[in-house]
Amino acid sequence: MKNILKFGVPAIAALALAEPALAQDVAADAVSPGTAYIFNTLLFLIGGFLVMWMAAGFAMLEAGLVRAKNTSTQCLKNIGLYSIAGLMFWVIGYNIAYPGFGEDSMGLFGMAGTIYPMQEVGGADTDTGYSVASDWFFQMVFCATTASIVSGTLAERIKIVPFFIFVTVLTAVIYPVVVSWEWGGGYLDSVWGFSDFAGSTLVHSTGGWAALVGALILGPRLGRYVDGKLVVFPGTNIPLATLGTFILWLGWFGFNGASQLAMGTVGDVSDVSKIFVNTNMAACAGVVVAIIATQLRYKKADVTMALNGALAGLVAITAEPLAPSVGHAIIIGGIGGLLPVIFVPILDKLKIDDVVGAIPVHLVAGIWGTLIVPWTGDATFVGQLVGVLLTMVWVCVASAVVWFILKAVMGLRPSAEVEMDGLDMHETGIEAYPDFTKHAA
Amino acid sequence: MKNILKFGVPAIAALALAEPALAQDVAADAVSPGTAYIFNTLLFLIGGFLVMWMAAGFAMLEAGLVRAKNTSTQCLKNIGLYSIAGLMFWVIGYNIAYPGFGEDSMGLFGMAGTIYPMQEVGGADTDTGYSVASDWFFQMVFCATTASIVSGTLAERIKIVPFFIFVTVLTAVIYPVVVSWEWGGGYLDSVWGFSDFAGSTLVHSTGGWAALVGALILGPRLGRYVDGKLVVFPGTNIPLATLGTFILWLGWFGFNGASQLAMGTVGDVSDVSKIFVNTNMAACAGVVVAIIATQLRYKKADVTMALNGALAGLVAITAEPLAPSVGHAIIIGGIGGLLPVIFVPILDKLKIDDVVGAIPVHLVAGIWGTLIVPWTGDATFVGQLVGVLLTMVWVCVASAVVWFILKAVMGLRPSAEVEMDGLDMHETGIEAYPDFTKHAA
Amino acid sequence: MKNILKFGVPAIAALALAEPALAQDVAADAVSPGTAYIFNTLLFLIGGFLVMWMAAGFAMLEAGLVRAKNTSTQCLKNIGLYSIAGLMFWVIGYNIAYPGFGEDSMGLFGMAGTIYPMQEVGGADTDTGYSVASDWFFQMVFCATTASIVSGTLAERIKIVPFFIFVTVLTAVIYPVVVSWEWGGGYLDSVWGFSDFAGSTLVHSTGGWAALVGALILGPRLGRYVDGKLVVFPGTNIPLATLGTFILWLGWFGFNGASQLAMGTVGDVSDVSKIFVNTNMAACAGVVVAIIATQLRYKKADVTMALNGALAGLVAITAEPLAPSVGHAIIIGGIGGLLPVIFVPILDKLKIDDVVGAIPVHLVAGIWGTLIVPWTGDATFVGQLVGVLLTMVWVCVASAVVWFILKAVMGLRPSAEVEMDGLDMHETGIEAYPDFTKHAA
Repeated sequence: MKNILKFGVPAIAALALAEPALAQDVAADAVSPGTAYIFNTLLFLIGGFLVMWMAAGFAMLEAGLVRAKNTSTQCLKNIGLYSIAGLMFWVIGYNIAYPGFGEDSMGLFGMAGTIYPMQEVGGADTDTGYSVASDWFFQMVFCATTASIVSGTLAERIKIVPFFIFVTVLTAVIYPVVVSWEWGGGYLDSVWGFSDFAGSTLVHSTGGWAALVGALILGPRLGRYVDGKLVVFPGTNIPLATLGTFILWLGWFGFNGASQLAMGTVGDVSDVSKIFVNTNMAACAGVVVAIIATQLRYKKADVTMALNGALAGLVAITAEPLAPSVGHAIIIGGIGGLLPVIFVPILDKLKIDDVVGAIPVHLVAGIWGTLIVPWTGDATFVGQLVGVLLTMVWVCVASAVVWFILKAVMGLRPSAEVEMDGLDMHETGIEAYPDFTKHAA
Repeated sequence: MKNILKFGVPAIAALALAEPALAQDVAADAVSPGTAYIFNTLLFLIGGFLVMWMAAGFAMLEAGLVRAKNTSTQCLKNIGLYSIAGLMFWVIGYNIAYPGFGEDSMGLFGMAGTIYPMQEVGGADTDTGYSVASDWFFQMVFCATTASIVSGTLAERIKIVPFFIFVTVLTAVIYPVVVSWEWGGGYLDSVWGFSDFAGSTLVHSTGGWAALVGALILGPRLGRYVDGKLVVFPGTNIPLATLGTFILWLGWFGFNGASQLAMGTVGDVSDVSKIFVNTNMAACAGVVVAIIATQLRYKKADVTMALNGALAGLVAITAEPLAPSVGHAIIIGGIGGLLPVIFVPILDKLKIDDVVGAIPVHLVAGIWGTLIVPWTGDATFVGQLVGVLLTMVWVCVASAVVWFILKAVMGLRPSAEVEMDGLDMHETGIEAYPDFTKHAA
Repeated sequence: MKNILKFGVPAIAALALAEPALAQDVAADAVSPGTAYIFNTLLFLIGGFLVMWMAAGFAMLEAGLVRAKNTSTQCLKNIGLYSIAGLMFWVIGYNIAYPGFGEDSMGLFGMAGTIYPMQEVGGADTDTGYSVASDWFFQMVFCATTASIVSGTLAERIKIVPFFIFVTVLTAVIYPVVVSWEWGGGYLDSVWGFSDFAGSTLVHSTGGWAALVGALILGPRLGRYVDGKLVVFPGTNIPLATLGTFILWLGWFGFNGASQLAMGTVGDVSDVSKIFVNTNMAACAGVVVAIIATQLRYKKADVTMALNGALAGLVAITAEPLAPSVGHAIIIGGIGGLLPVIFVPILDKLKIDDVVGAIPVHLVAGIWGTLIVPWTGDATFVGQLVGVLLTMVWVCVASAVVWFILKAVMGLRPSAEVEMDGLDMHETGIEAYPDFTKHAA
């Protein structure tokens, strides 16, 4: 995300409106500062509710891809993690993410102040060119997205309470620290010129690394790898997973589009429009590539790979959705769509059990999208690599510490009996589909 | 909802734009009346389609929480009630809700005129600062929401035709009369200074009272209470209920945010932003409180209580989503989230059969939200209490009359055989999940 | 769709702002060109993401109405067709649809140039009054909608690969040619004054004709008509179909509302508002009529007919959602809602197997909506009839050619064994509901 233009262009425009002597072509694009403020705020609000809606997308995607006996638990985890993220980002997260680093700071760790107020909607806000509350809301839903990624990978074998505690730390500290380095103007932004427009690394890889470390520490689901061979645990509800993917796709217009952070000028709203098109086309390409690849490789057009192809295309274009031409976006997204087809089997070969394929989609495609930014955007490959690696080190170490503490204190996994019965029966006490599955007993 | 500013600030702003001599800080926030008109209208349109979407939320929530054998009927009731609400609010409801009370009127009953025209989109509209049609659309979807609440409580045991007739009267007369007292500028507004920003009482309690009266007259589902003990009828599809809750949460940004009724000024759009944050945080708090409460009380984190906690938090903040600080909103929503945990068992002890928990969520949390307004907003406790009680008396009496007439004329409940078979087979003729449930037979 | 006003009114408005001597009532509605540009672009973006969301609506509607054994395939087809439409509309479709016909052209076939660039978001865009990329996005999602209609009718018996190839041709050529005649300013627009505001004919009938021809060439599903009698194949998931209908209804506010193509003036945004109301009320009327009609005819209130009634009402009002009064809209939509009740049995009598009822909903109601335009709008019955017939001839012939070529080259239908097993097992390799349906085996 770039910094918002603080009335540079709009101020000139207002002048132009009041001064008929100025050239007409300047006046033609004029937007008064008050009007620009409303547009910018509206962009955050629309973008915010679209990204909030992605929480439902993750919930449906994951509910559709787990087995019936763990579905209620997965639903609970998803609505719970969004809620925890909201509270934690308010209590502390936002202040860590946007700390206003001092001059002597390396820009690595900082904090802005006490609990974020947001009560004032008066004069001070006007200087920024948008409502502070609208910006906060937009940032908060990104924080929740990061946590959603973790829940998918670790599904079906982690207890509810330690999962929620991990989410608390992730959204309060781990994710905000990463954000501070880049969008908060810290180390990666100021020293390395790292570029991550809407969060291929900051959001998706962060979630992906936390998920990967969790998967390694938790181990695979019982019965998943038997005698070195993969046992397929088919998802329970493919239309639900499809719905989740469409929801995420829709939400991504807010995720990428509103990361322009402004639409109060003709240039900004045109950029938002181009981002919409590039975002959409990267996803289209991801789907088509995944379908063709699985048709060629397995003689079947794999629907879950098509869904993951859409998501991987979206993750890939997220690091730079504005600079690419449509042709670039198709290539970036298309290669993104290939990554799950390649990496899902690799993870299984490594016996890393990723229930919904979140690691190929969010981590691998996130790295791909970040490293390809220099092709079209204003960044260096080295700077991008440093950003990827620093994020990896921090998130992996911090996550591992938290996971190991939780494992020591309360244990992460339910008993084998509970896992075989399904978590729904024991952890939330409510079966997801009692009228359909009881006949199996 | 407050009255819309009729070009007060914008008019000054327009002047400022045309007059460079005025102070710069005034000019900086200037929005021309035409621009403000578009923004205000756009707020109604966006808010309107988000609240319309809540109809899908109620449909999914209820379809997920009834048993499979009544699911198709529940879907039909939900799309039907929205459609009836639309027609009835046009035929008569809007005119009752916004009657333009005469001077001698007590402001209790009135009517604006004949069928609402809305053809004219020309000059007259401009005086209001927004398109009349956009406002009508926004008001209509609120009317539909009220009816949605009733369908959840009474599910699985009321015939389709009397249900639809009740909805007709509710949306044509019962709800609009309540609205007229407050948003229409009638008795509660002018005499008691009653305050209900987006409808904790006007929408949610109204629906809740109608549902409660209906539940008392209908009686519980067959086999629900046996030998004084509750028999659990588990919901058939928890992911669908989760989806419904997320849809409602999303829609609530429109419900509360657009109830600001204007975003054509810097102040208004900043207020809308603050409402978004407070609405979101109240729901987050409701979820977390419900999860913690059920974990402590039952040693299980109850997913349906988490869903109801979100909704109760949302209902609670609806009476005043603007005045509270974020901290206030969290407390108001958090206590809201506790109410279903407390009141669902109480209702069952009283043998009041509320299939989806709509009475705790919409009625109890609606009363809570209304009575707590004086803590942060501009209202008195007595005024709020009068509003709650007057709504109770009117809606309960009017609903009871309609329910009893319907019971006498055509009967409300299907035969015991139909109820045991499920309403789907007999009333709509279409099973909801024929491929899954037939194996049970 | 009408042509966008190219700064006519806004230019005057800007002048008014800068000139206090002008009459106040002109100044009151003034919107600067820059501001109007942002509003117009925003309308395309909001309308665009709402129509994109309709892809999910079609997916859910169709996934809900097919049998469980074909559900995964149907999900794949829907996400695939949207993606193909995006790519094809970029490669060639848009250029065919908006060709800038030469003076000697009959306006029947044309092409604008090479692959649509969209890179430039600078000066040139400003002349149009909106971002070109936003317009392209809005047009692209319409193209995808057309393809969605075909997938529903032909479900459960067409192989994935030929289906996708047909979609490729449909979205690259067949649909764009139809668009060029009317919205592209070609033959129907310039010669016949044909009027189709948002696409009752251009989108819905085009999809409907392609589906009808496909259904005739494919033939019915195995076992559908036995001894001249219809065998009911019930839909597998009614709540999903209901969800899909609500999604489509929501998306239609973008489909019709944003087809106003501008909201940068007080008049335009008021028109968009009126379109919202008319669109909503036509759907409401369609639902109520379908419920009453099935209750009277079959003594059951058929939920799938209620869903189709909503959609048929929406299709019917799409040709002219602005000119009608609300009363007109209710009549147009109500009659629309009756059409599936009448035509679904007729199609079955003709042994045309339309799995989801797309032909009555999109083709028949689309024709109805197109022919009734002269009642309220600016068109002649003859002109409308020519539009309907020309579209019929072109789409039927072109589709038949493609279907026959595909049939000859690779075959359209799977083997009888595959069809009886369900396409999911063989074509995509993933069962939709493995935990629910395996017990049937």
